[in-house]
Amino acid sequence: MNIANGECPVARALEVLGDKWTLLILRDALTGVRRFDDFERHLGISRPLLAARLKRLVAEGILARHPYRPEGERLRHEYRLTPKGADLRLALIALKEWGERHMAGSLAPFVLFDKHSGQEVRLGMVRTDDGLSV
Amino acid sequence: MNIANGECPVARALEVLGDKWTLLILRDALTGVRRFDDFERHLGISRPLLAARLKRLVAEGILARHPYRPEGERLRHEYRLTPKGADLRLALIALKEWGERHMAGSLAPFVLFDKHSGQEVRLGMVRTDDGLSV
Repeated sequence: MNIANGECPVARALEVLGDKWTLLILRDALTGVRRFDDFERHLGISRPLLAARLKRLVAEGILARHPYRPEGERLRHEYRLTPKGADLRLALIALKEWGERHMAGSLAPFVLFDKHSGQEVRLGMVRTDDGLSV
Repeated sequence: MNIANGECPVARALEVLGDKWTLLILRDALTGVRRFDDFERHLGISRPLLAARLKRLVAEGILARHPYRPEGERLRHEYRLTPKGADLRLALIALKEWGERHMAGSLAPFVLFDKHSGQEVRLGMVRTDDGLSV
């Protein structure tokens, strides 16, 4: 890994993601949360803090604002993951798996399944050419 | 994923890891940095901030302090990853891969190789029972 922080992809990622609230917002977004009030309720975060984090994530191209109008109400916006944002899935799964192994105490792990085969899956290293796990 | 934050393994992981400096210290530790002065120099972090982060990581059982005595100097301590800390490897690789794909601009990716087969590897989801990637 490049040691100079400006050239290190981890350091560059953390310029945006190195914040607890930001990663919790992305966790929620990856599980289907889209609306401001839903993020606020799920996270127990103050509205100004949430607004600032969402604005940053939109500016970074990780979330995109989409307009919607609830019946009889004013126009609002919801926040959807862009492809760049959706690509954070493995990073959040890595944190989930580590949290389950080392921080979760007696909680049962939340198992993930492959949508095609229905089989239980976990994170691992795979060979780039043939996809075999190592 | 559990929505209630207290029961969510991601939220529990982020109680410790949801901080840019902490994750940069762990990135360095995973690449072999062990000594206070080396962390300080690599990271460009202030000494009090580094000391506080290292103390927290030791308290959480992610790093362990080991004594050493440089020739003619006083006893010092270095910081080594515990198994709990070393198990953050996939999370840091996930951030590295995402940073390379989405934040790194023109930098060449830092390729990882399997130490047994010598083949290029990347992060992926694998089936728990037979290790096949999905």
